[in-house]
Amino acid sequence: MPLSIAKTGKPRVVIVGGGFAGINLLRKLRHADVQVVLIDRNNYHTFQPLLYQVATSGLEVGSIAFPLRKLAGRRKKAAFRMTEATAVDMAHNRLKTLNGYIDYDYLVIASGTRVNYFGNQEIEQNSMPLKTIDQSIALRNLILQNNEKLLLTQAPDSQKRLMTIVIAGGGPTGVELAGAISELKSKVLPKDYPEIDFSQMHIILIDFAPRLLSTMSVDASQAALKNITDYGVEVRLGVGIKGYDGRTATLSNGDTIETETLIWAAGVTGEALDGLPNESIVKGNRIAVDSDCRVKGSDNIFALGDIAFFPTEKYPLGLPGLATVAIQQGKYAAAAIRTLIKGGQPKPFSYLDKGSLATIGRNKAVADLPKGIHLHGFFAWVIWILVHIFFLIGFRNRLVVLFDWMWNYFTFDRRVRLIVRPFKRQNSGS
Amino acid sequence: MPLSIAKTGKPRVVIVGGGFAGINLLRKLRHADVQVVLIDRNNYHTFQPLLYQVATSGLEVGSIAFPLRKLAGRRKKAAFRMTEATAVDMAHNRLKTLNGYIDYDYLVIASGTRVNYFGNQEIEQNSMPLKTIDQSIALRNLILQNNEKLLLTQAPDSQKRLMTIVIAGGGPTGVELAGAISELKSKVLPKDYPEIDFSQMHIILIDFAPRLLSTMSVDASQAALKNITDYGVEVRLGVGIKGYDGRTATLSNGDTIETETLIWAAGVTGEALDGLPNESIVKGNRIAVDSDCRVKGSDNIFALGDIAFFPTEKYPLGLPGLATVAIQQGKYAAAAIRTLIKGGQPKPFSYLDKGSLATIGRNKAVADLPKGIHLHGFFAWVIWILVHIFFLIGFRNRLVVLFDWMWNYFTFDRRVRLIVRPFKRQNSGS
Repeated sequence: MPLSIAKTGKPRVVIVGGGFAGINLLRKLRHADVQVVLIDRNNYHTFQPLLYQVATSGLEVGSIAFPLRKLAGRRKKAAFRMTEATAVDMAHNRLKTLNGYIDYDYLVIASGTRVNYFGNQEIEQNSMPLKTIDQSIALRNLILQNNEKLLLTQAPDSQKRLMTIVIAGGGPTGVELAGAISELKSKVLPKDYPEIDFSQMHIILIDFAPRLLSTMSVDASQAALKNITDYGVEVRLGVGIKGYDGRTATLSNGDTIETETLIWAAGVTGEALDGLPNESIVKGNRIAVDSDCRVKGSDNIFALGDIAFFPTEKYPLGLPGLATVAIQQGKYAAAAIRTLIKGGQPKPFSYLDKGSLATIGRNKAVADLPKGIHLHGFFAWVIWILVHIFFLIGFRNRLVVLFDWMWNYFTFDRRVRLIVRPFKRQNSGS
Repeated sequence: MPLSIAKTGKPRVVIVGGGFAGINLLRKLRHADVQVVLIDRNNYHTFQPLLYQVATSGLEVGSIAFPLRKLAGRRKKAAFRMTEATAVDMAHNRLKTLNGYIDYDYLVIASGTRVNYFGNQEIEQNSMPLKTIDQSIALRNLILQNNEKLLLTQAPDSQKRLMTIVIAGGGPTGVELAGAISELKSKVLPKDYPEIDFSQMHIILIDFAPRLLSTMSVDASQAALKNITDYGVEVRLGVGIKGYDGRTATLSNGDTIETETLIWAAGVTGEALDGLPNESIVKGNRIAVDSDCRVKGSDNIFALGDIAFFPTEKYPLGLPGLATVAIQQGKYAAAAIRTLIKGGQPKPFSYLDKGSLATIGRNKAVADLPKGIHLHGFFAWVIWILVHIFFLIGFRNRLVVLFDWMWNYFTFDRRVRLIVRPFKRQNSGS
C-alpha cells in the first residue's frame, strides 16, 4: 500500500535520512520546482559531533537535536514521514518503508552509518555505543549511576570495576569522550561525591591502530596522545578488544580488564538498502557512487554522506565520514537534481577539504587545517568552538550551547547530571 | 548489612525523599550540628508543578530537575544515597532500604505520593500518568508520535482515535495540561503538520467532581471552566472513567470514547512505610502526624508534605498537597529537630495559607489569594509566572525557563518537540 502523500505534479525527490547530507539537500531544494519527501526513523536531526557532551552531562539533548518538521518547512514545502526505509524497487521507482511504499522520481540515500560490532554479539549486548541521542542519554545515566552504585557497594572487586571505564576506539569520538570523562573525574565529580576517592578512577582508551586519531595528521595524533595522557588517561595502542561479558574485557593480546563500563566507539558500518544494484554494494555495506554521487548502476538514485563510498586520489578508501563531506554532498546533490530535471548532465562532485578537528578538553584541541597547517592547544580549541557553534542548527541552540559552554568553563560545573530512566506504559505498542 | 556511611558522632537525621519538603529541610539544617543523610530513588529533585510543560514540549527536562547531590552540599555536609526506603525498624531506630539499613536519630518521611489507579489494572496498564520526569518524557513522546502515526494511517477509525486525547482529572494537573495541549493544537502543531486538519482534534477533560479545580474557590472553577471551554476543550463533569483497554475508554455513565491517549491525572495515594505505628496509617495510605509533624505514636519520626495527614480546622481532610505546605513543613521540621536535640518541645506547626494558582494558557490563570481575593486572567497569569520562577531551584534554571517562556510566548513555538526513545543495553542490569 502506498504511504498517503498528496501528489503535486512536480518531480518528487525522496530523501532517506535527516543527517547533515539530508538537511542540506532539503534546504537547497527549498526554492526548486520539486516535491520533497523526507523520511527518518527519528523526528529530529542529530548533531552527532556533540553527542559525547550529552553523554558527559555538559549539554542537554534539546541543544543538539532539532525537529525535522521545522526544517522540512512549514508551507507544505516538504513532507516528512517518521518511518524506516527497507528496500528500493528500482523497476518501479519505489521506496519501500515499514509503513508502505513511496514513489519517487529521484531517490537520495543519506542514512548514515550505525555502530559496527564486527559480529561480536557479546560486545554488542554488554557495551555502550554512542551514535544516537538515545545512546548518549543511556551512557550519561550509566556513568552517573556507577558512582551512585559505588556508594552502595562494599565489595572491593565490584568497586574497582565501577571505577574503571574502558573506551574502545581512538578516533575523534573516543578521544573527545576520554577527555570529557577525565574532566568529569578531576573537576566535576569530586565536588558531588566527596566520599569517593577519584584518584582511584581509571580511564583506559584502546585502539587497534598504532596511533590515536589515525585519520588525522601525525602531529595531531602526537598532541592528542600527550594531552590525553597528561589528563591521566591510560592509552593502549595496537591492541583490540575481543570479548566483554559485562564485567571483564578481554584484549587481543590476552590481557583482561575488569570494568562495568565498556564504551564502544571502535567502528561504524553502513546499512545499504535491499534492491540496489549489486555492483554498488561495497565493503562496510556502503554504497559506491559515480563522480556525480549517483549510485553505480542507477540513473536517479543518489547516495550521500557516510553511507556513500566516494574514492578520490587523496582518499582511495573513500571520502572520510565527516560532517563537511556530507554537507557539501547535500548541497551538490540539490544542484545535480536541478540539472538532471532540466535534461543536463551534472558536473562531477569535488570535495573541498576544510580539514578536521578534535577537542581534548579545556583549552585543548587539535586541528588539521588546509594547506598542511597543523594546530594544537588553545587556538585550535577556539576554532573548534567556533566551528561547532556555526554548524549547529537553530539560533536558539547556538545561544544555549554557547551559554552552557561558558557556564561549564567558568563554574567547572555540569548541569545535566540527571539519571533519567525510561518510562513505558506496560502495553505500549511503540 | 548497613549502608556504608561514616559516622560523625553528631545526631543523624535521615530524610526520605528529595521533594519540596526534603530539600527545604536539608537547606535549613545546613548549619545545624547534625549529620544529614538524604535518600531518594532519583538523583534529582523534580519541580512537579511544571511537569506538564515538559510533556507539552515547552520546557526541557534539565530545567525542572535539579541534581540532589548539588543540593546536598559539597563539603561533606550531607550524604546522599540513591536508593529506596522499604521499612522502618522503630525498635532499633533503623531505616531499611533496598541496599541495606541506615541508623537514624531522627527520621523524616517526605516521600510524597504516587499515581492512584484505584486498583484498576487495565487503566494502569494503558493510560499515561504524569507524576515523574520519566513519565513527562513518555507523555511528550506519545503526543508527538500520535501525530506522526496519523500521517502513516489511512483507516478513519484509527485516525479518529489518534486525534482524541482524554484527560482524567480536573485538578490543577488536568486543567493545566488541557490548556497546554489545546495551545499545541491551535498554535504549534498546525505549523508542523500542514497536512493534518487539527480542527478535528478532540480534547476531553473528565472529572467525577461537579466542578473543575475542586480544591480552589468557586470563582476559580468557573473562570477555569469558561477559559478551557473557550479553548475548545470538552469538559465532562460528574462522570468518571471505569475502564480503558488502550482504544476505548468506558465512562461511569456507560458512555464510551475512542482514544489512543488517556492521561491519568485523577488521583494520588501515599506509600506509607512498613513498620510505622498502626494508628498513624490513614486513608489514602498517608501518615497521620501530631501538631509538630511527628508521626503519631513515635518520638523521633516526622512525616512532611503530601504523604503527611495533617488535619486543621479549615482543612479537616488534611492540608492540601501543595508545594507551599511541603516547603513550610520542611523548614518547620528543621527548627523542630534543633529544638528536640536541645531537649525542648517544638511549638506546633501552623500553615500560613498563601493561596493557590493554576494556569490555563497564554495570558490566563486563576488565583485564590489570601484574604479571600480571587483573581483570574492576565494578572493572575503574571503572578503564576513570578511564583514559579521564584520557587524553581537554581539560578540557571530560572534564567533558562524565563528565556524559554519568552521564546514560546513570542514565537508560538515549542522547541523540544523530540521523540526520544529509551535505549537500553540488552543485558543492562538497571
